[in-house]
Order: sequence, then structure tokens, then C-alpha cells
Amino acid sequence: MTARTVEPVGSPDPSGPDGLVRLRLEVAYDGYGFHGWARQPGLRSVQGELESAVRAVLRVPAELPVRVAVAGRTDAGVHATGQVCHADVPAAALAAQGRGPGSSTAAFPGPEPDDTVGARVARRLNGLLPADVRVGRVDPAPTGFDARWSAAWRRYEYRVADHPGAQDPRTRGHVLWTTRPLDVAAMDAAACPFVGEHDFAAFCRARAGASTVRTIQRIGWSRDEGLRSGVPGIVTFSIRADAFCHSMVRALVGSFLAVGQGRWPVERPARLLAAAVRVPSIPTAPARGLTLVEVGYPPDAQLADQAQRARRWRGR
Amino acid sequence: MTARTVEPVGSPDPSGPDGLVRLRLEVAYDGYGFHGWARQPGLRSVQGELESAVRAVLRVPAELPVRVAVAGRTDAGVHATGQVCHADVPAAALAAQGRGPGSSTAAFPGPEPDDTVGARVARRLNGLLPADVRVGRVDPAPTGFDARWSAAWRRYEYRVADHPGAQDPRTRGHVLWTTRPLDVAAMDAAACPFVGEHDFAAFCRARAGASTVRTIQRIGWSRDEGLRSGVPGIVTFSIRADAFCHSMVRALVGSFLAVGQGRWPVERPARLLAAAVRVPSIPTAPARGLTLVEVGYPPDAQLADQAQRARRWRGR
Repeated sequence: MTARTVEPVGSPDPSGPDGLVRLRLEVAYDGYGFHGWARQPGLRSVQGELESAVRAVLRVPAELPVRVAVAGRTDAGVHATGQVCHADVPAAALAAQGRGPGSSTAAFPGPEPDDTVGARVARRLNGLLPADVRVGRVDPAPTGFDARWSAAWRRYEYRVADHPGAQDPRTRGHVLWTTRPLDVAAMDAAACPFVGEHDFAAFCRARAGASTVRTIQRIGWSRDEGLRSGVPGIVTFSIRADAFCHSMVRALVGSFLAVGQGRWPVERPARLLAAAVRVPSIPTAPARGLTLVEVGYPPDAQLADQAQRARRWRGR
Repeated sequence: MTARTVEPVGSPDPSGPDGLVRLRLEVAYDGYGFHGWARQPGLRSVQGELESAVRAVLRVPAELPVRVAVAGRTDAGVHATGQVCHADVPAAALAAQGRGPGSSTAAFPGPEPDDTVGARVARRLNGLLPADVRVGRVDPAPTGFDARWSAAWRRYEYRVADHPGAQDPRTRGHVLWTTRPLDVAAMDAAACPFVGEHDFAAFCRARAGASTVRTIQRIGWSRDEGLRSGVPGIVTFSIRADAFCHSMVRALVGSFLAVGQGRWPVERPARLLAAAVRVPSIPTAPARGLTLVEVGYPPDAQLADQAQRARRWRGR
């Protein structure tokens, strides 16, 4: 989650000086087949797939760059259901998104697909995208909206099935399986002291000059109801923070799992947090169980201010 | 769901005359990688994988056959979360399932894995099985138990995501995606007349001499809550019957989807049912969306009677 480029705050107007409009996209993906969000030469990435699809659907000329910016730069193998992105596209190409063939063919009355420009763009993007990325929704972005810098918080979930009766092969791509049962109450107790503003240096890969201070708004472990009575359900970790540094969620999950499996005392994660020194021995949980589920934004009138504050605080 | 062999009713006693005991197994699988439940020469099947694992873990001698019998013989590509099976295994091998290495290594107190013989057998089976099949639970079968013939009912679910915002790439292997929105109220109305005993000849692949009469106990279509507010959720079909004939659930789902997408009038599925003649034009929904979720058995004292009745009724 590092800043590679710094853009001026204040996105193009609905039809800005250079004829670009900003679109807000909601995106979901199965992280298994990707080397993470970020485009990298020669490797398959979510950003790469989206940028190709946006270029094709919105007929962006070859000489113009297409850049899809994102709220949460997920690592290799991490999934998303509620990812938010933005892309600046030619206003003329957007206006040209007429109704295609294949509109209503129903013989009897019933619900019709959405026919807004955004819904049409989403359908066309999905028609080109591989099945492991979906665009759930496309809207014109409100003034001042920046998918990354305007975001007020991100929420991740991590899922673990610690009992064979909860290990559903259909969902094995996004749920971690363990053989040892987890003590969910101990993990939840270990997580509680993490709420609030802390320096997460112990749990982050450091980056020169970047702050490792983050604010956790909500955190907790819980167990779902089981598939059948008498069978323990899946264990879910949920964490919401203003932002996360690199590999932070997986290092936290790895530490709490060590508590839940009786390998660490309950107090150890909080002691490491207080020490605020990177400990290489902190176990990192596998990417497979982790999903970015939600990104929160302030009301439209505060989008630009929020972006300015976030850049000042983290954007170096 | 055809009967290939007919065995005598009344399973071996906990340690029967030939030294076999019957185990009851709960099994889940991702149907994608299998040519269905039933063992077939040269093709990968759930039954084949389970029989190999049972033979290895319970050290069944090469000269003894291992047969895993099942409640619901699912077709190629169909999933299961609540499948029930039985297998007759040597009592001596079962008694020899001691505690292996790798038992508790926790430094701090916490939950311990189950240490019943059944839990140990389940762990060893899972250790050998590929990740697309899991044994959720193993128990000694009660007297008279037959996974197939003692079952009082089976329940299947079919899932459809008819809106891009509900199409989660992580679950694309077990949820059908459609581009046209579904009229769930119309589908539910079309399904209602199917409750009760009917001849399902219109929806079954006929088999000479076999009855196509089945009793539907519950049936319905509903829409889950969406992932986010304003986004339609996944549509689920649930059907519970005493038993199903071959491809029956998928032919029913295909018919109801034709109603939900405005291609058929609401009354057409019930009219086809009443005609009771196989119609080749009935659309068969893809296997991908279908999961066997639950199998119901009567109280232990009625297991043998139930098996006898079911064999008389369907078992030719």
C-alpha cells in the first residue's frame, strides 16, 4: 500500500478541461490467479486486467494512459468483494455508450436490466473481463472523489475453518483450513487492545520515511453458526482502520492465530504492539483467507478535504 | 440415482459375523473436478476417491471389496455440503486407530481436537483425500442404517447471481451467473403447485421399470440480502423431497429460470408436470449452481423399516 505517484488533489470535473470524466467502480475479485492488485511487467494483476478492459470498452486512444486507482492495494492472493476504484475516461467515449443488441428479449413482463450509462459500461467491462474479476457497479464519481485518498476507512475479513465439519471444499479458495481448533474468546481478547491509534511498526514491513501509525476503528474475532447443529462454524476476523500498511492484516492474523492455537500467551500481540519494533518472527497468515470487504467514504462535500488530509498524513 | 446393486436390508451389527462394522460418514465436495459421485473406470469420481482413502486408512485387505454407499448420487459437476455415506470396514482395523503423532503441542491451555475413534478416522481420511473432498464427521452407524435406503429426504439448493453486484468471483464455482434479472416472486409462484406427490415423468430421464413418482415436501425461491445496501442479493432455490430421479432438480430449475427471465408464462411448469410426459425441450440448468445440502433420516428405531419401504417403492 505504498504511494508510487502523487497526483494533484481535486479530480477532473464531470467534463474536465482535457475532456476526461472520472468514473467510480466497485470491483470484486478472486485473488488466487493474480500477483496482487498492482500492475507489474509480465505478471497477471487485477489492475492490468481492469485497465485493458477500460481501454477497450471506453475506446481510450493508444496515446492516452489509462490508470485505474484503487482504495486498497491488495497483495498477491488476497481477495476483494468491496474494492473501490476510479478511472478517468474520455467524456466523448462515455456519451457514446448506446444500447447494444441483446437488450430485452422477454416474451412476458418482468424485471428489466438497469439501463443507465453506468450499468451499460459495467456490463461491457464484465463481458471482456475474465471470470475472476467482476465490476459490480459503475457511477460517475462525485467532485473531489479519489478512490484511494478520499477513503475514510477499509475493512478486511479473514476466515478460518478449524473443524473438518466446517471445511467446505466449495469455499476452500477463500477460507484457511487448520487442524487445531481455535480458542476464539482468547483471540478476541488478544485483539481488543489494538483498537485506537497505534504505531504498527511491529506488524508492518517498514518503508523509509513512511509513517506506520494507523487507527483501528473496529476489530474482533467471532464464530459463525455451524452448517449443522453440533458442528462448529467458521471463525471470522474483522478489522476496520483508516488505512493499513503493507502485510499488516496478515501479520496481525498470524499473531492472533498463534494465541488461538495455544502457541502464544494472550498478552503477547499487545506487548509486541507496544514495543513498536519490527519482529521478523511474527507469523504471517496465508493470503488465501483474507478479503477486502468494504471501503468507507465521507459525504460528498468532504471528499476533497479527506483526500488532502490523508495525503498529508500518509502520502509520502 | 439408479440402483446398481441390491443388498440385503439390515446392516452388519457393530461387529457383524464377518468382522465388519458399518461407519456413517458426512462428506462435502466441490463437484467441479469430478465426473459425479459414482465410480466409473478411468474417470475421477467422489466415490473412487473415498473408497481409496477408506481402504488405505482402515487397512482393508486387497481381496476385500470396499464400497462406499451414498444418500444422493450427484451428477457430474454437482456439489455437496451435507452428503451422507456408509462403508463397512474391518472391526479390527477400526479398533487399531490409536492416537498418532502430532497430537497436542500447545504450550498454553485451549481447546483440544476431538479424540474419539471417529474423529481420528476423519482426520486420517482428510489427510489422504484431495482438498475438493472433505469428511466432516465419522460415527459408528446405528443398527439398520443404510445411507441410501434409510434416508427419509434429501434437500438441494441452487444459487443464482442475476446482478453484477452479487457476482462474487470467489464463489463462482457454485453460483450460476445470469445477465438478465430474475423475477423471484414469479418463480416462487411457479414452484408452489409442485408440493406433494406427483409423477415427475416430464422432468426425469426415464429408466425402464422405475417409478418417476416422488413427493416434494418443501420447495421455494427466495432472494438473500445483498452484500451492500441497494445491491440485490443472491437468489436461492431450495427443494426437499423423499428422493429425486435423474436430472430432476436441474430440469425443474431450468423451467423456473425460464419463468423468472420472462421466457415462459408462470403456469407452464405446472402444466408440464400435469402432462407427465418427458419433454426434451425442458431446459436443464447447469450443474455448477446445484448443491446437495442436507439428508434427513428417521429416528434410529425406524431406520430398517424406512429402508425396506424405500426399496419396495423405488428400488428396482
